Amino acid sequence: DFINALNTDIKPAFGLNEEVLESYIGGGIINWDPAIEAILETGNRVIQSAKQVDSKGINTSILLLEGPPNSGKTALAAQICKNSNFPFIKVCTPHEMIGYTETGKCAAIKKIFDDAYKSELSCILVDDLEGLMDYAPVGPRFSNLVMQALRSLLNKNPPKNRKLLVVCTTSSTNMLEELGMAQLFRKRIRVPCIATGKQLVNVLSNLDTFTSEELQKIEKKVSGIKVWVGIKKLLYLVNIAAQVDQSQRADVMLEELEEEEHFLK
Amino acid sequence: DFINALNTDIKPAFGLNEEVLESYIGGGIINWDPAIEAILETGNRVIQSAKQVDSKGINTSILLLEGPPNSGKTALAAQICKNSNFPFIKVCTPHEMIGYTETGKCAAIKKIFDDAYKSELSCILVDDLEGLMDYAPVGPRFSNLVMQALRSLLNKNPPKNRKLLVVCTTSSTNMLEELGMAQLFRKRIRVPCIATGKQLVNVLSNLDTFTSEELQKIEKKVSGIKVWVGIKKLLYLVNIAAQVDQSQRADVMLEELEEEEHFLK
Amino acid sequence: DFINALNTDIKPAFGLNEEVLESYIGGGIINWDPAIEAILETGNRVIQSAKQVDSKGINTSILLLEGPPNSGKTALAAQICKNSNFPFIKVCTPHEMIGYTETGKCAAIKKIFDDAYKSELSCILVDDLEGLMDYAPVGPRFSNLVMQALRSLLNKNPPKNRKLLVVCTTSSTNMLEELGMAQLFRKRIRVPCIATGKQLVNVLSNLDTFTSEELQKIEKKVSGIKVWVGIKKLLYLVNIAAQVDQSQRADVMLEELEEEEHFLK
Amino acid sequence: DFINALNTDIKPAFGLNEEVLESYIGGGIINWDPAIEAILETGNRVIQSAKQVDSKGINTSILLLEGPPNSGKTALAAQICKNSNFPFIKVCTPHEMIGYTETGKCAAIKKIFDDAYKSELSCILVDDLEGLMDYAPVGPRFSNLVMQALRSLLNKNPPKNRKLLVVCTTSSTNMLEELGMAQLFRKRIRVPCIATGKQLVNVLSNLDTFTSEELQKIEKKVSGIKVWVGIKKLLYLVNIAAQVDQSQRADVMLEELEEEEHFLK
Amino acid sequence: DFINALNTDIKPAFGLNEEVLESYIGGGIINWDPAIEAILETGNRVIQSAKQVDSKGINTSILLLEGPPNSGKTALAAQICKNSNFPFIKVCTPHEMIGYTETGKCAAIKKIFDDAYKSELSCILVDDLEGLMDYAPVGPRFSNLVMQALRSLLNKNPPKNRKLLVVCTTSSTNMLEELGMAQLFRKRIRVPCIATGKQLVNVLSNLDTFTSEELQKIEKKVSGIKVWVGIKKLLYLVNIAAQVDQSQRADVMLEELEEEEHFLK
Amino acid sequence: DFINALNTDIKPAFGLNEEVLESYIGGGIINWDPAIEAILETGNRVIQSAKQVDSKGINTSILLLEGPPNSGKTALAAQICKNSNFPFIKVCTPHEMIGYTETGKCAAIKKIFDDAYKSELSCILVDDLEGLMDYAPVGPRFSNLVMQALRSLLNKNPPKNRKLLVVCTTSSTNMLEELGMAQLFRKRIRVPCIATGKQLVNVLSNLDTFTSEELQKIEKKVSGIKVWVGIKKLLYLVNIAAQVDQSQRADVMLEELEEEEHFLK
Ligand SMILES: Nc1ncnc2c1ncn2[C@@H]1O[C@H](COP(=O)(O)OP(=O)(O)OP(=O)(O)O)[C@@H](O)[C@H]1O
Ligand SMILES: Nc1ncnc2c1ncn2[C@@H]1O[C@H](COP(=O)(O)OP(=O)(O)OP(=O)(O)O)[C@@H](O)[C@H]1O
Ligand SMILES: Nc1ncnc2c1ncn2[C@@H]1O[C@H](COP(=O)(O)OP(=O)(O)OP(=O)(O)O)[C@@H](O)[C@H]1O
Ligand SMILES: Nc1ncnc2c1ncn2[C@@H]1O[C@H](COP(=O)(O)OP(=O)(O)OP(=O)(O)O)[C@@H](O)[C@H]1O
Ligand SMILES: Nc1ncnc2c1ncn2[C@@H]1O[C@H](COP(=O)(O)OP(=O)(O)OP(=O)(O)O)[C@@H](O)[C@H]1O
Ligand SMILES: Nc1ncnc2c1ncn2[C@@H]1O[C@H](COP(=O)(O)OP(=O)(O)OP(=O)(O)O)[C@@H](O)[C@H]1O
Ligand SMILES: [Mg+2]
Ligand SMILES: [Mg+2]
Ligand SMILES: [Mg+2]
Ligand SMILES: [Mg+2]
Ligand SMILES: [Mg+2]
Ligand SMILES: [Mg+2]
Repeated sequence: DFINALNTDIKPAFGLNEEVLESYIGGGIINWDPAIEAILETGNRVIQSAKQVDSKGINTSILLLEGPPNSGKTALAAQICKNSNFPFIKVCTPHEMIGYTETGKCAAIKKIFDDAYKSELSCILVDDLEGLMDYAPVGPRFSNLVMQALRSLLNKNPPKNRKLLVVCTTSSTNMLEELGMAQLFRKRIRVPCIATGKQLVNVLSNLDTFTSEELQKIEKKVSGIKVWVGIKKLLYLVNIAAQVDQSQRADVMLEELEEEEHFLK
Repeated sequence: DFINALNTDIKPAFGLNEEVLESYIGGGIINWDPAIEAILETGNRVIQSAKQVDSKGINTSILLLEGPPNSGKTALAAQICKNSNFPFIKVCTPHEMIGYTETGKCAAIKKIFDDAYKSELSCILVDDLEGLMDYAPVGPRFSNLVMQALRSLLNKNPPKNRKLLVVCTTSSTNMLEELGMAQLFRKRIRVPCIATGKQLVNVLSNLDTFTSEELQKIEKKVSGIKVWVGIKKLLYLVNIAAQVDQSQRADVMLEELEEEEHFLK
Repeated sequence: DFINALNTDIKPAFGLNEEVLESYIGGGIINWDPAIEAILETGNRVIQSAKQVDSKGINTSILLLEGPPNSGKTALAAQICKNSNFPFIKVCTPHEMIGYTETGKCAAIKKIFDDAYKSELSCILVDDLEGLMDYAPVGPRFSNLVMQALRSLLNKNPPKNRKLLVVCTTSSTNMLEELGMAQLFRKRIRVPCIATGKQLVNVLSNLDTFTSEELQKIEKKVSGIKVWVGIKKLLYLVNIAAQVDQSQRADVMLEELEEEEHFLK
Repeated sequence: DFINALNTDIKPAFGLNEEVLESYIGGGIINWDPAIEAILETGNRVIQSAKQVDSKGINTSILLLEGPPNSGKTALAAQICKNSNFPFIKVCTPHEMIGYTETGKCAAIKKIFDDAYKSELSCILVDDLEGLMDYAPVGPRFSNLVMQALRSLLNKNPPKNRKLLVVCTTSSTNMLEELGMAQLFRKRIRVPCIATGKQLVNVLSNLDTFTSEELQKIEKKVSGIKVWVGIKKLLYLVNIAAQVDQSQRADVMLEELEEEEHFLK
Repeated sequence: DFINALNTDIKPAFGLNEEVLESYIGGGIINWDPAIEAILETGNRVIQSAKQVDSKGINTSILLLEGPPNSGKTALAAQICKNSNFPFIKVCTPHEMIGYTETGKCAAIKKIFDDAYKSELSCILVDDLEGLMDYAPVGPRFSNLVMQALRSLLNKNPPKNRKLLVVCTTSSTNMLEELGMAQLFRKRIRVPCIATGKQLVNVLSNLDTFTSEELQKIEKKVSGIKVWVGIKKLLYLVNIAAQVDQSQRADVMLEELEEEEHFLK
Repeated sequence: DFINALNTDIKPAFGLNEEVLESYIGGGIINWDPAIEAILETGNRVIQSAKQVDSKGINTSILLLEGPPNSGKTALAAQICKNSNFPFIKVCTPHEMIGYTETGKCAAIKKIFDDAYKSELSCILVDDLEGLMDYAPVGPRFSNLVMQALRSLLNKNPPKNRKLLVVCTTSSTNMLEELGMAQLFRKRIRVPCIATGKQLVNVLSNLDTFTSEELQKIEKKVSGIKVWVGIKKLLYLVNIAAQVDQSQRADVMLEELEEEEHFLK
């Protein structure tokens, strides 16, 4: 329809090129557990509520996805942003700010929010909070200025008639508590790692790397076993296994998981 | 009358656009407990005293609203400033100073006070002291320069024939003690969280989200239960509940409060 | 006489506008205890000695007024400076240096001393040493550069034929010991808080806020009670009490003192 | 063939002069233990996998060589990069960034990655991670900015149709754990020191410094003895021994190893 | 004679105005104890040795005067420098460097040494080492750059045919040990405080403030009493006593000493 | 011969003025113990090995002289550099870098190495490592940037056909261990202090300050006594003793040693 066409046209100008957003979901979203679906559904409810906030003065919806490294936080956050279909979607990641000074970072982050306020409905993906704040667990060290800027931007009401959805990701829940940032988020969702043999097989069956015999072989081996691997790492190991001959892939797969200590005893 | 008209005209020039002040009271001030009224009354008395200070040399009235995050400090402080009807009212928040250097922040804050001194009767809302001072609980870290500037500005007598009312807010009473700032404030008011089922129902009955049957249902469930939720967070949860069908709202409301651990055991 | 006339003329050029000095003694000096008189007398003796130092090489007299916040240090120091009647009197406070860099502060302080050396008899009021040095009790943090500059300026002999009186104030005796600055001062005077009911009544009888009946009423209540309140805070509370009707002022006064915990048990 | 010729021509323009890479393998790769061969083989498999990653979104292969100082990490990493035969190979070492500011370093490192993204198949040798991050064990001190930049660059997916192999070296596994960087690496390989007399003799027999009689003499002495020496240091000691007469070399060699405490008791 | 005349003429150009040096000995050097004479004699021997160093390569003589605050270190050091009669004498004090950056201070100090190397025989008075290095006992904090510069300048041999005498003063022996600077000094002399009643009377009899009867009165009171006062402070207290009538001076003197806790029990 | 003549001519242009090097060996190298000869011999072997390194890739020889302050490290290091007769010899000391910023220091040090790479055979004397790195034992504080630069420069292979000998000195072995720099050095030599009466007399007999009778007198007194004095300090004390009459020199010498606590009990 017309509005959608318009949005698509406008997007490159002040919003996000769809392709960029897609690049964070390169491996798709594999539905390896009901928890994944649940995360996306909660995302939908928050989107809905972000759209329809009344004039009671709370017009920013802030969602936090927290989980271990490699668990798929960024991909899920990107998917939720994509699902919002908001005319303005922007990603805020530490990567674009490499080598910026602290004040430079603050200005860059503020600009994203200021740009968002220009659209009635806006969505910002704030990826990797600890990276944005230059957080290092020793010390701890972090950019206090960036932390304060984020705190202030997330806590600020958008101007009249503006509605804002912010989706944040972090691997360091500790950091949030430590810095007293936990109260900023209206809704917190935990992103899980693959933890059981069954979940592992679920992932593998969603890929076309293994034959069904191989899958059965793997299933037998891992059934009832405690696993601990993030989806990102798992997909990489599958990729290595894919280099060997079809007949050896199951074994190589299991070896790699073992070697990298992803089976817990 | 004439003077009021004049003030209104002058305001945009060197004072505060009324709209900006209103934006902090977006959700209104719901009278969910006598404590709320009491806060505003104390505010009125301080306003009165600020107006009529004699020449004994103490012409700055400094009021502090302290309370947990989301408890409504900023809205109440804005309401008190509005109630003063002073010709000059200005807000000083960390948001406008994002990415400023320490000395830049000091200069910006000082300018607000210097501007205030140009009017006979002035009111400054210093919102979020810990944010202004870049205070982080680990370390602790804070901008010593900004702290010293605030300390010096709050402690300074205005020039002859100038009267100044300053309303400050903070979530971190600890910080004030730690930094030896507690003595700066002439009057300290504690802003409470909603702590009982009755108070909770009081808030909800002030909104048109729930039918009276639903309210009764909620009342039954929460009567006698210990609650701990700030007004800002509560209004947000109501907003989420408002997304579902009228008939389910009470349940969703209670679920959300439970899920976010706002019922204490 | 001629010299005095001359001094008055010269003052605005390189010294202090009398009005500025007065502004620190807005509430006057109430003689609520013999200790107050004693402080001013000691001040006079130091002034005398500062004027008549021989050529034995020690031509700087450094006086320190130390006492709790709000105890009246600045007003007493300003009074002593005023009593000196020196042709050059300058005030050095953290307020003028808000947002200065450390080196900027050092230069500004040094300039005051350099200017003072241009007059034969000079007096400098160095108000709020801890503020000047950006001292914060946590850490502790302070501007080491400013501390070193003050240490060096206070310890330096003025040029030939120059005599200098420096009156310093501080609320933090701890800080001076901690930083090894205690030995800089030739004479240290402690400024007390109001500590007895009798002293409290002494202050109140010096004001025209209460009728003599009210004063008697207050006297009865506070006789023999331990009090702890600085003169500055007390004058502010009187001011609040003055807002209510004559007949209720004594009660409000006592309430306010109670509420703010100025009666010790 | 044509493509190879092309690559060779293109290399000097935006890639690496072969000579530079060779300079890191000055002493060749002596095959003193099966572990060495294994390292290179693993390297080959990672190269293969880096070339053939599908579109599942994980297009960066990150390999870490970790081992004690002098163990030969840099030479082995350079050999792996050389083996890749990728058209773009670049080395990132602290040496070129001596005296750079933190932000300068970040920019320089980012540029290497940005350049790499211009070629379809790229390889980056990130040598001496702790040096790049200015890591010092006391404190610890390190450049948080550079650490964050590396973390962000290693974690970032290359643009569409770009494949990247990164080979890192470090002597400080502790540091990686401490800074939470361990999870960045897809594959970690440990580089060993020479630890047995047999391995020691293996190295020496690969050089033409000693006659076979001398080698037998050394072999007798060191058989069954615990050794601990990095290949780089060992080659240096051989070089010193080579200064003396043929007949004394074995003795001098053993003396030098003893003196520098490379024989463990 | 001619050379002396020459020196005198040259001095103002690149050396020290005699007056400046004198200003540090404003109160003269009172011979209140044989220790004072001994200090000046040791000074003479070091001067002699500084003049006649042969070509064995050690052409810098570094003397340290250490003692409590107010003990007279600077005056004694200035006297020794004056006694040297060297054509180039320069004073290096923190006072001239107020507000300098660390590198600015380093450059200023280095310039003094570079200038000194232009004369064959030079003398530098490095007054108040801890002030020069911005040393603060808490932390401790100090300018590491200035410390390193001093260390390097004091440890450096002057150019051929140049001889240098450096006289340093400090109140903080602890600091020197802590910073490992103690080994820089070729000779260390301790400057004492006045510690006995007899020494105290010795000082007073050297002044014309008291009549001999008064001196006897004081002597009786303080004989056998433990005293602890620096000569600088003592001269200041004498000055205060001198303000009162001749007949009361002895009493005031004793009172002042008592009040300021200079009599030990 | 021609080449030598050439070298000599070239030296002033890009190498070291011989005079500068000599200035570090002002007092000559007195052969007071076989250890001294041994140090110089080891130096010679390292020079030899530095010249003849083959193409095995290790073309930098790094020698460390470590010993207590005043023990003669710099003189011995300078002597070894002089003995190398390399066409390019440069000294890198903290003295030339006084007041440089950290990055300035890094650039200056790097330039020395870059210059050295222009000559086929180069020698660099890196004097006083702890001074170069602004190392202070409290904290510890040090310039991490300079440390990293040195680490990187010492660890770097020179370009093809370039051979480099680096002689470093330090008084702080602790620092090297603490900063993990110990492994950088190919050869470490300890420089001793004079520790026995016999060694002491050895030094004195090498000078023409004492008559043989005096030497015998001293010998008797110190035979069997534990001494602890660096050669630099000892030569200074001899110099002081040389100021007195021939007949008293032995006594003064012994007194000075005693007074400065160089005889251990
Ligand atoms: N159910 C899933 N949830 C999340 N990601 C998935 C899922 N299924 C497949 N993927 C793929 O897995 C990858 C997850 O990588 P992602 O960068 O989101 O992880 P991450 O947790 O953000 O990692 P990091 O901790 O490094 O930030 C993506 O390529 C994504 O397409
Ligand atoms: N009785 C009340 N007191 C305060 N705020 C109220 C009240 N009733 C309704 N509100 C609404 O609740 C919201 C309170 O938000 P406010 O920003 O003042 O909280 P806050 O305590 O300052 O939060 P923060 O800790 O994040 O600074 C406002 O929208 C306000 O209009
Ligand atoms: N006896 C008195 N001594 C001091 N001040 C008095 C006295 N009587 C009345 N005053 C009034 O009390 C006030 C004292 O305020 P002042 O600023 O001097 O306090 P302070 O101790 O310097 O406070 P702070 O700790 O904030 O620096 C002044 O207005 C002064 O005029
Ligand atoms: N099997 C081997 N593995 C690695 N290096 C070898 C081997 N055989 C010979 N060498 C030679 O040994 C030297 C190893 O030096 P290299 O710089 O790689 O060590 P490093 O571990 O990186 O040292 P550093 O800890 O200082 O970084 C090179 O000259 C290399 O050519
Ligand atoms: N015997 C003496 N020794 C030193 N100073 C003396 C002596 N007799 C008199 N004086 C006078 O005493 C004063 C000593 O002051 P000086 O500044 O030297 O003390 P200081 O120890 O350097 O103080 P500070 O610790 O503040 O640096 C000078 O005015 C000097 O003329
Ligand atoms: N055997 C010797 N070894 C070293 N120096 C000697 C020897 N004999 C005489 N000297 C002389 O002793 C002096 C040693 O001073 P040098 O500066 O080398 O000591 P250092 O250990 O470097 O001192 P620092 O710890 O201050 O750096 C030089 O003047 C040198 O000529
Ligand atoms: Mg992520
Ligand atoms: Mg608020
Ligand atoms: Mg004050
Ligand atoms: Mg290496
Ligand atoms: Mg002094
Ligand atoms: Mg040396």
